[in-house]
Amino acid sequence: MRRKESNGQKRIKIIPLGGLEHIGMNITCFEYENDIIVVDCGLQFPDEDMLGVDLVIPDITYLKENADKVRGFVITHGHEDHIGALPYVLKEVNAPVYATKLTMGIIEGKLKEHDMLGSTRRKVIRHGQTINLGCFRVEFIKTNHSIADATALAIYSPAGIIVHTGDFKIDYTPVFGERIDLARFAELGKKGVLALMCDSTNAEKPGFTQSERVVGRKINSIFDEHKTGRIIIATFASNVDRVQQIINTAYQHGRKVIVEGRSMVNTIAVATELGYIQVPENTLIDIDTMHNYPDDKLVLITTGSQGETMAALSRMAADTHRKVRIKAGDTIVFSSSPIPGNEKAVTNVINELYKKGAEVIFQDTHVSGHACQEEIKLIYALTKPKYAIPVHGEFKHLRAGAGIARTMGYDSEHIIIMSSGDVLSIGQDTAKIVDHVPHGCIMVDGLGVGDVGNIVLRDRQLLSQNGLMIVVLTLDRETNQLLAGPDIVSRGFVYVRESEELMEDAKRIVDKAVYDCIDNNVTDWTKIKNKVKDSLGDYLWKETRRNPMILPIIMEV
Amino acid sequence: MRRKESNGQKRIKIIPLGGLEHIGMNITCFEYENDIIVVDCGLQFPDEDMLGVDLVIPDITYLKENADKVRGFVITHGHEDHIGALPYVLKEVNAPVYATKLTMGIIEGKLKEHDMLGSTRRKVIRHGQTINLGCFRVEFIKTNHSIADATALAIYSPAGIIVHTGDFKIDYTPVFGERIDLARFAELGKKGVLALMCDSTNAEKPGFTQSERVVGRKINSIFDEHKTGRIIIATFASNVDRVQQIINTAYQHGRKVIVEGRSMVNTIAVATELGYIQVPENTLIDIDTMHNYPDDKLVLITTGSQGETMAALSRMAADTHRKVRIKAGDTIVFSSSPIPGNEKAVTNVINELYKKGAEVIFQDTHVSGHACQEEIKLIYALTKPKYAIPVHGEFKHLRAGAGIARTMGYDSEHIIIMSSGDVLSIGQDTAKIVDHVPHGCIMVDGLGVGDVGNIVLRDRQLLSQNGLMIVVLTLDRETNQLLAGPDIVSRGFVYVRESEELMEDAKRIVDKAVYDCIDNNVTDWTKIKNKVKDSLGDYLWKETRRNPMILPIIMEV
Repeated sequence: MRRKESNGQKRIKIIPLGGLEHIGMNITCFEYENDIIVVDCGLQFPDEDMLGVDLVIPDITYLKENADKVRGFVITHGHEDHIGALPYVLKEVNAPVYATKLTMGIIEGKLKEHDMLGSTRRKVIRHGQTINLGCFRVEFIKTNHSIADATALAIYSPAGIIVHTGDFKIDYTPVFGERIDLARFAELGKKGVLALMCDSTNAEKPGFTQSERVVGRKINSIFDEHKTGRIIIATFASNVDRVQQIINTAYQHGRKVIVEGRSMVNTIAVATELGYIQVPENTLIDIDTMHNYPDDKLVLITTGSQGETMAALSRMAADTHRKVRIKAGDTIVFSSSPIPGNEKAVTNVINELYKKGAEVIFQDTHVSGHACQEEIKLIYALTKPKYAIPVHGEFKHLRAGAGIARTMGYDSEHIIIMSSGDVLSIGQDTAKIVDHVPHGCIMVDGLGVGDVGNIVLRDRQLLSQNGLMIVVLTLDRETNQLLAGPDIVSRGFVYVRESEELMEDAKRIVDKAVYDCIDNNVTDWTKIKNKVKDSLGDYLWKETRRNPMILPIIMEV
Repeated sequence: MRRKESNGQKRIKIIPLGGLEHIGMNITCFEYENDIIVVDCGLQFPDEDMLGVDLVIPDITYLKENADKVRGFVITHGHEDHIGALPYVLKEVNAPVYATKLTMGIIEGKLKEHDMLGSTRRKVIRHGQTINLGCFRVEFIKTNHSIADATALAIYSPAGIIVHTGDFKIDYTPVFGERIDLARFAELGKKGVLALMCDSTNAEKPGFTQSERVVGRKINSIFDEHKTGRIIIATFASNVDRVQQIINTAYQHGRKVIVEGRSMVNTIAVATELGYIQVPENTLIDIDTMHNYPDDKLVLITTGSQGETMAALSRMAADTHRKVRIKAGDTIVFSSSPIPGNEKAVTNVINELYKKGAEVIFQDTHVSGHACQEEIKLIYALTKPKYAIPVHGEFKHLRAGAGIARTMGYDSEHIIIMSSGDVLSIGQDTAKIVDHVPHGCIMVDGLGVGDVGNIVLRDRQLLSQNGLMIVVLTLDRETNQLLAGPDIVSRGFVYVRESEELMEDAKRIVDKAVYDCIDNNVTDWTKIKNKVKDSLGDYLWKETRRNPMILPIIMEV
């Protein structure tokens, strides 16, 4: 361990273990001597090529190796990409969790599912409050975001103050709660900020992100213009302010509200319990009583704004929802914009809704939760950090965040674009990547954590493209004579009943390969298997231009 | 067959066999008594859930059943969604193909690949020319589109004139060739048009699509602003006017041009041979001589503007291109916009290019090839059809196309939104869907046409999500005793070496299931297989929450 130096030359380590290559899996360690604090602990949704994978969590080898140093997890807000890996990570590194009230409420829901409520120390923190974690002090600063109770952090370390924005936007006219505490950012700027770690999600976008209030006005005008028929609004379950605005508008227009979709029901329950959503009496009704009300007295708030196959709205669109049939006269509002990659799924749902005669509104009904360029500049102007460290986003977002810092006068020595696993040693004099620690994606499939890796994925990929052919045969251990088979079983390759000729020829090819081996007294199973693979593979490629997985299995009696 | 009626009451049938549910697979039959003509014959790119499928072609059962009536295929332009199924369809229904020069050049490339040049009658048609096909006369009318030589069709039938726009935009200032022949649309309007079948791709978009010339100016300004370093431009291979503009700009700036990517090389070869691209002498150089020129004297025109994994630009971004390494100083231009569904792939390529230090430009460098609302209105105003039949697009596009007709004064009896397979009987008095014919998607995988169906896809889907477990055992035919196994082989399920315990338990479960059957003298293989499937399936679900495909295979000796 390094000897303590004079105050001005103390250095801390910043080690992101995720969040800098994709949007998702945010987790960053701050380390000084014997103390580590971890900011956020998120998951990532699987890429398209991670077949069958449910979610992705960060490799926390580094934290496990330093588990005795970890003083706590400090969480900025309750979105999956900031909290989703907590249950998995806490099982390996059990340290207390600090978060604001709503954030903690959502985390507790997760811990409960994993039966970890009893084993996890938790502390709810208010905005403005400061906690001591080893040599670090961490202050929670009010921000605005697309979920209530988001916080920025001022991390007071021996090397100086680091401001981490979390995910934020500047909403001067928030519908509920207070606006971002800009004054506190300014005060920190006056004290002197070593580094600003700033949300870069919208750093490519000029201007300012619009206020949540704009959406409320639009929703109100949609209610005004659609006085007959049901209104069905799909939005993000976690956007409790959005949900509150919809509920208020429904109430003002004399409509009853039905909440549909598991995550929507859960989140609204938590938010209501904690006082983040106020529902006027007799406004919420059960979906089963829906038929007691005329269509023009109903609003459904539902999941499925991203076209997710199993979400409520998608099931309604596909006519597989058990309780709601879409019909002419319905107005469906997507209060969301498609997350990159979901565009086609959303379009498919819209087409199906249109086909059923519904009207669909999907424009100007959503605002982002992330700061655009002018907001990011404002935070720089207020905090006046020595170093700019753009975070949260893909490389192009970080690069755009760095570009903003450059326009604010930062040179390349004072702008640091990090990669996951980098160890940044930062002090008042310099900031340098000095080391790299293990990092990466751990895939979760069902209950399995990390038991799906590249080999399994490669097999799934192969199987998904061309299916497989299994060749089984039984040999006599003593005489090496063929006792049964070779038989061919195929799946996902061709429709066997309509490809009899091909399958018969394949059988002949395999027979020949096997008999050639046996007649030549080949007893090495690997050789027999390879011969079968090669002959059959060549034949199938020639006939079909396909490469199914070929799996020879030899049994011996 | 219906008796001939008085002229005013003659009716023809319009039967689209594809193109009305997705963008892709355009093919429409026009039928009168003993004559059928087919407009376009396109393919569709597979949906995400069509695992391993290369392309999709239309079900042409109806054409096969009426093959003797088919007088010809009339093709509007050379894009895959209008010509891609021709080689497959012509094998089943051999009729002459009619198209303009460039379109035919591209078709001939396809026919050559399928060794069908000799067996396919072909006739090149000029704009303004009319051909007789049975009782139909078909006139080719010049339009503008994102590929040169696009044509609209005036189909003179016994029931009246039907105008089919093909894919079109109105470009008042085309860079090459002439502008759309608006006067001819007006003349047809004066003659009297029974129905307008109008491209609806951009019917949701207000205003006018910009001229191709705008892109040329932008590209020119990019060249002006990036005088050092290479310029690499990715665009659609088929957009020969775009390619011509890039070549001209390169020439003016004293840069040599390299063409990279198979489809780009092929298309430019055809277009150059037919006179659609003029390349100044000494401008095109071979990629192998690239190192003889300084970077600021080079332009690469390449495929990969959609982020396609195997395309040239994607390989450059991934550092797997054999001849081009991306480096700082390179400027990469996406002269394209992502086709819905490709957004994420394009973003991934952009991120990789940025990481290598290149500059990437992907805005204002593309214009659409399809007409927006005001252009569509203009065509209605000129042709004044009795019936409006929006075509080309997903349902939401057709619906928007219908909306435009409604604003132009058409009522619901005179606007017809068709579905593939519908038989529209149309005459001067009425237009009605009177019948339905078979239609659908035939999947092409490698050389196999139609041998991949829902069962194969479902298996691929299953295999891709959870992999498979094969259970093999050998029984004695006489005594029903177990001679070998049961053995378990798995692929794509778990990483076996790190899941030994799970696999051992699975083996025990299977052993028990098999011995239970044998001890109870169960000789019905189906019962044994089901017992294995159920026991193993239950166990794996309990332990892992996964459902691999379980495949019991019994051999007998």
